[in-house]
Amino acid sequence: MTSSIYKIIQNKQLGYQNSKKEISDLINQYTNDQIPDYQMSAWLMAVYFQGMCRNEVEDYTEVLIKSGKQLNMSHLPGFVIDKHSTGGVGDKVSFILGPILAACGCFVPMLAGRGLSYTGGTIDKLESIPDYKTNLEINDFKKIVEDVGISIMGQTEEICPADKKIYSLRDVTSTISSYPLICGSILSKKIAEGIDGLVLDVKIGNGAFMKTLNEGKKIAKIIQEVGELHGIQLYTCITDMNQPLGYSAGLWCEIEESIQCLKGVGSDDLLKVVLHLGENALKLAKIKKPKSLILSMLKNGKALDIFYRMLEAHGVKIKKLKDQKINKPKFKTYIFAKSKGYINKIDTEKIGLGLIHLGAGRFEKNDKLDNSAGMKFLKKKGDFVLKKDKLVEIFCSNKDKIENAKNILNQTYHIGPNKIKESQLIYK
Amino acid sequence: MTSSIYKIIQNKQLGYQNSKKEISDLINQYTNDQIPDYQMSAWLMAVYFQGMCRNEVEDYTEVLIKSGKQLNMSHLPGFVIDKHSTGGVGDKVSFILGPILAACGCFVPMLAGRGLSYTGGTIDKLESIPDYKTNLEINDFKKIVEDVGISIMGQTEEICPADKKIYSLRDVTSTISSYPLICGSILSKKIAEGIDGLVLDVKIGNGAFMKTLNEGKKIAKIIQEVGELHGIQLYTCITDMNQPLGYSAGLWCEIEESIQCLKGVGSDDLLKVVLHLGENALKLAKIKKPKSLILSMLKNGKALDIFYRMLEAHGVKIKKLKDQKINKPKFKTYIFAKSKGYINKIDTEKIGLGLIHLGAGRFEKNDKLDNSAGMKFLKKKGDFVLKKDKLVEIFCSNKDKIENAKNILNQTYHIGPNKIKESQLIYK
Repeated sequence: MTSSIYKIIQNKQLGYQNSKKEISDLINQYTNDQIPDYQMSAWLMAVYFQGMCRNEVEDYTEVLIKSGKQLNMSHLPGFVIDKHSTGGVGDKVSFILGPILAACGCFVPMLAGRGLSYTGGTIDKLESIPDYKTNLEINDFKKIVEDVGISIMGQTEEICPADKKIYSLRDVTSTISSYPLICGSILSKKIAEGIDGLVLDVKIGNGAFMKTLNEGKKIAKIIQEVGELHGIQLYTCITDMNQPLGYSAGLWCEIEESIQCLKGVGSDDLLKVVLHLGENALKLAKIKKPKSLILSMLKNGKALDIFYRMLEAHGVKIKKLKDQKINKPKFKTYIFAKSKGYINKIDTEKIGLGLIHLGAGRFEKNDKLDNSAGMKFLKKKGDFVLKKDKLVEIFCSNKDKIENAKNILNQTYHIGPNKIKESQLIYK
Repeated sequence: MTSSIYKIIQNKQLGYQNSKKEISDLINQYTNDQIPDYQMSAWLMAVYFQGMCRNEVEDYTEVLIKSGKQLNMSHLPGFVIDKHSTGGVGDKVSFILGPILAACGCFVPMLAGRGLSYTGGTIDKLESIPDYKTNLEINDFKKIVEDVGISIMGQTEEICPADKKIYSLRDVTSTISSYPLICGSILSKKIAEGIDGLVLDVKIGNGAFMKTLNEGKKIAKIIQEVGELHGIQLYTCITDMNQPLGYSAGLWCEIEESIQCLKGVGSDDLLKVVLHLGENALKLAKIKKPKSLILSMLKNGKALDIFYRMLEAHGVKIKKLKDQKINKPKFKTYIFAKSKGYINKIDTEKIGLGLIHLGAGRFEKNDKLDNSAGMKFLKKKGDFVLKKDKLVEIFCSNKDKIENAKNILNQTYHIGPNKIKESQLIYK
């Protein structure tokens, strides 16, 4: 006969709404090991199919938040804001936008994640910086936010432990891609940071989890609504991920590109996304003339200075950082154009897969990363190329891996005789 | 990154067909404890939502069969046939039909189940007969089928162990009601018995798992098709379960009613279903004039004789059986009509629930049953009653339980001023 957990699964399965009590019983008992994984995974799969209404997402998010500590940042003399991206290839926006916002007077307490499937991970990239600590105590993290204006580190056991446990199960039961679960997972961690505002960058395209504009809009809408119900100001936008963002993807090479961008030498697409998100973040913070303020903080070096100060606060010796030998790859090769014509399509998911093969991501949880691994995109969509032109430079420190990756990456650039219309970079 | 089991879950989740290899890898590895419960339950829930095509059900059924022993009954000098019902309240057809078919020259190797949710269990009812053994060795089971023409016992570890393991998981993850899973579970066990033919009684109505005619037709069709693909001759029909079948429901009282029916003193609805299934079973066996043959086997006492011989072969002392004191309930009470009028509706699921409360079924796996527990239906649908007329006699050997059950059963008979059209008993 049915137990109450059985009933909770069945209600969701039959398309009924789970009550607030049902959701909190389920999540809390699961977090306390009182419900077995197999019942939780049945519920997760039922949620994948039946979805959740706004009330349920709100309740789910709240239970995740209350499963751990919530930071109080209300004493800070400025707007507390964070940024989140749903994941892509070459997406290094946080490293640039975060210091810019701090330079403009905001405070940025950013708890970030590792690489997921074929998308890169903020924490993995940060750990390619020699001595950068990503697992500070919560109080040290708060202190850096106070002193420097920004700190980026990994998720801790103390914040949203329920989400952490559920996420691990979703990862092995094909239930990562459920919108309400994504929404709860993102918002709970962000809200627990004690933020006033959040800018959300929903990536869509062949290198993102959301493939279409409609999917992107759907998830942006629910996060916006539920975030606002929790008293957070949000700006959500949808940006293109039909090719990698910027001119590099990987680990250390993305940090290098970020530093270049903070120096004002960025690739056009990356800078546009940074400016768009930055402008709207500052609007949430009611800061006037946001665009010119951002540009001045890039020009006067204050944003870069804050980036370096954050690194120092996390244990990095900046002097050592300027050494050209850091994370120097042992091997390097190129992908060449197979024909003359216009680059009409880049298979971005396969680029991400190639990065994992190079050692910049993980096939298994415990795979060791190669900080030197990555690639530079010498040509991007819309470019005209001749046969045998260099398209991508790929590099890492393992000979077998670079060969494997090359085979995959050989299939990623699609060249045609006519230039086709490029996809829009920013949709809102 | 994805493993192959992950991919199998994901394919089903996205609505793709699982290949034969995927299904056999999944089931075999799960049976060998190489796949955790939580991945299997995610797949089961995905199957619940996405269903399976005929090929998949066929592959699934085959893998379940091959997970254990398959009986060979081809040496028997007659048609080897079994009967299956999808479950209801008061459904005692097997105890009457089985001996009839054996008396008509067929062989009936019947592996049956225990009570499930609010429906009664063949094995539970048999175990109310003093000394009846339901867990014989496979060879003893075969021997009884050979000698007597019929043996009914419980599922063993040797036949379809994969189904047994998956069934336990389905039971706690709300995935019992998936049609392809039901189909695989029923057919695998029946086919492994080595049968030539199967009659399937799909119950529909408010006391059955399938509530509507459409649902009933759907499951009947898929079982028919997949069974035939496995070389089994099938007759499937759909019968009404909007009230209990026969005049009793419970444990020992159903055995008593079955014996009465074998003596030709049955209630009309029960006898009709027995005759319909029996006639069509004998048609599968190519036995001529099936209806008159069945009636003669009831009249000349041969069917009853075979029933007693089966009991003896399973350890029962028939002499002892005729003692009036067997399973005599200590307590007895009645449900009365609340008003004058026609009985227009009986909430059969609630009757089943009342039976569990009485002790004739289980709330938890290890609940001990009360063999004396049950009820007699003094009035059924369409009957005219006066206020305070006795509707149901309920009995068991635990005073608290009978009070609890009475409260539930008080809500089950719906009486109205006008007689409404009765539902059809047999749909095909």
